[in-house]
Amino acid sequence: MILSIQTYKKTEFIDITSKVLAEVKRSRISDGLCMIYVPHTTAGITINEAADPSVKEDIIMALNKMIPETLNYGHAEGNSPAHVKSSLVGVSTTVAIEKDELVLGTWQGIFFCEFDGPRNRKVYLKFINNDIKKRAGVNYS
Amino acid sequence: MILSIQTYKKTEFIDITSKVLAEVKRSRISDGLCMIYVPHTTAGITINEAADPSVKEDIIMALNKMIPETLNYGHAEGNSPAHVKSSLVGVSTTVAIEKDELVLGTWQGIFFCEFDGPRNRKVYLKFINNDIKKRAGVNYS
Amino acid sequence: MILSIQTYKKTEFIDITSKVLAEVKRSRISDGLCMIYVPHTTAGITINEAADPSVKEDIIMALNKMIPETLNYGHAEGNSPAHVKSSLVGVSTTVAIEKDELVLGTWQGIFFCEFDGPRNRKVYLKFINNDIKKRAGVNYS
Repeated sequence: MILSIQTYKKTEFIDITSKVLAEVKRSRISDGLCMIYVPHTTAGITINEAADPSVKEDIIMALNKMIPETLNYGHAEGNSPAHVKSSLVGVSTTVAIEKDELVLGTWQGIFFCEFDGPRNRKVYLKFINNDIKKRAGVNYS
Repeated sequence: MILSIQTYKKTEFIDITSKVLAEVKRSRISDGLCMIYVPHTTAGITINEAADPSVKEDIIMALNKMIPETLNYGHAEGNSPAHVKSSLVGVSTTVAIEKDELVLGTWQGIFFCEFDGPRNRKVYLKFINNDIKKRAGVNYS
Repeated sequence: MILSIQTYKKTEFIDITSKVLAEVKRSRISDGLCMIYVPHTTAGITINEAADPSVKEDIIMALNKMIPETLNYGHAEGNSPAHVKSSLVGVSTTVAIEKDELVLGTWQGIFFCEFDGPRNRKVYLKFINNDIKKRAGVNYS
């Protein structure tokens, strides 16, 4: 399964929890794993607080502080800080599925992390079904 | 499966390897995956050296150096550095199970990372069983 | 499955994508997951741009900037920065397998990250097969 994400800023975190959950429901997997994977090298995926939008802004600010825009970077495209952030935050995460739902903590949301936007981006979802009887012969991808 | 973890400090790493292994044994899964997941937004999970306790203290010290306590944070609760650390370290990891054991390196241990304690915390474990015959109809969660 | 990796520098990223893909082919799994796991505490695994080799050098440079070689580290072996980098980058990642191929983005490669070399290193691969009929009774490890 592929989600399409449009980003509008150079750096922004976009809450994709409801989009991921809609695909879990559509897959009819009641128990298993959902791997969320970003096929880009200047973006990432993270799970953090979704209630107060200032949390994601604080994470972006701290990352910008840690990884300076100007360093003696060799990569010619000028987006090396975005590549560094991608490796620090990571391009994938896995969330359990139980009773047809994503098993997230109360305050958690799943965020697509744009570090070199604005761009059209993709997120891959890969499901592993723990229910053998439903699983055989079904292609979830 | 849910583990309960009591933390006692603002920031500390707690070795949960033996607790996770006990649940692997209890699950009777001999071959598969164990996903370890933290449902909190100011905590994380990491795998690192468990032999010398000074290693975890050095990691905590370096994180504190990288992510200053005082920055122009917008989140009102005053725990933004803990949210940043959670996204850097990550809230989940996956370890293989083979021959009834966690497949860890010689020096590796699994650590719950408290960044905003002390608190009562939870860790979710989710198992994927590679043994089909044992797997059908068993709910491991 | 275990890959052997020889590193030659203190800090270097080695593209292991083709080695991982060769094992995917050898496993004859057409659809599932491939977990890539580093059993070391001063190394890691990351997915980032494989086309321009300066990208990995820029990531190494930024990590060295973020995590100073000299801090008041307690760990006596002198490789605490390598342990910190390992926890930031992480020791495992998971890539989907579809139609006998790793599902990677156009520019993505899988890198073994040496932070305390040169050494002989190992990478564990663990497969989860989504094809039930092929899966029963087969030991992929």
